[in-house]
Amino acid sequence: MVKRICHGATNCPVARSLDAIGDWWSLLIIRDAFRGRRRFGAFQKSTGAAKNILTTRLRGLVDYGVMEMVPASDGSAYQEYVLTEKGLDLFPVVIALWQWGEKHFFEPGETPPVLRDRRRKKPIPELAVLAADGRRLRHTGTTLMPQF
Amino acid sequence: MVKRICHGATNCPVARSLDAIGDWWSLLIIRDAFRGRRRFGAFQKSTGAAKNILTTRLRGLVDYGVMEMVPASDGSAYQEYVLTEKGLDLFPVVIALWQWGEKHFFEPGETPPVLRDRRRKKPIPELAVLAADGRRLRHTGTTLMPQF
Repeated sequence: MVKRICHGATNCPVARSLDAIGDWWSLLIIRDAFRGRRRFGAFQKSTGAAKNILTTRLRGLVDYGVMEMVPASDGSAYQEYVLTEKGLDLFPVVIALWQWGEKHFFEPGETPPVLRDRRRKKPIPELAVLAADGRRLRHTGTTLMPQF
Repeated sequence: MVKRICHGATNCPVARSLDAIGDWWSLLIIRDAFRGRRRFGAFQKSTGAAKNILTTRLRGLVDYGVMEMVPASDGSAYQEYVLTEKGLDLFPVVIALWQWGEKHFFEPGETPPVLRDRRRKKPIPELAVLAADGRRLRHTGTTLMPQF
């Protein structure tokens, strides 16, 4: 992963997250890992990333503990990359990016694929930031975002 | 904004979102806009970005309709950058990144700033992906993420 500044020294959780995954290619790889891609060639095809880019991003994701290398699931000699528990915890990040894109980057008449609940097949409602008592919060309702 | 491939042509909402904001600096700028920063100099100070980097990222965010330029709130000659409604809709993305960083990138004994509900001062619970009927979903519970 190309690192320009390490934010690990700051105490902002967002900056620390971005050290690990705040890169366009890394986020596409994570998206595709959630969609079941496991092999270098599969990531290459789905992201369109050049080999060297993909190599550095996968290595970075492994270094940060987001993915891990495992022997191929079919017993072949390939290595596969899978999300760790830490990586799986990125599920709300991916869903939030999905829903934002769905809402804002499709023209009328264009149909994005719909993300559904597997069991009931209903579309997944918009992610909401809730307070401990269940109230829905906007940015103005949280303490670290003071000026709205 | 440095663009390597435009994903607008694909129909994946995540890829389209990343075209607009899938860049480390852009996400830091958005974080700081949520925290009330409005001026070029303030973003420069809080992100540590070089002038040219900040200029291209701010321009990109304006081009994508995530931020807009407005006259300075104090009547001075400065321009200010504020989140549009589209940009404000990134709130769950920022919160998801915050919570992931908080959970995974702090050592025992290190204390991240706590994100609280402004009214009750209680910490904000972890974002959950819920089905329409309120069940909490993991990645395995959604249809476009088939292989877990």
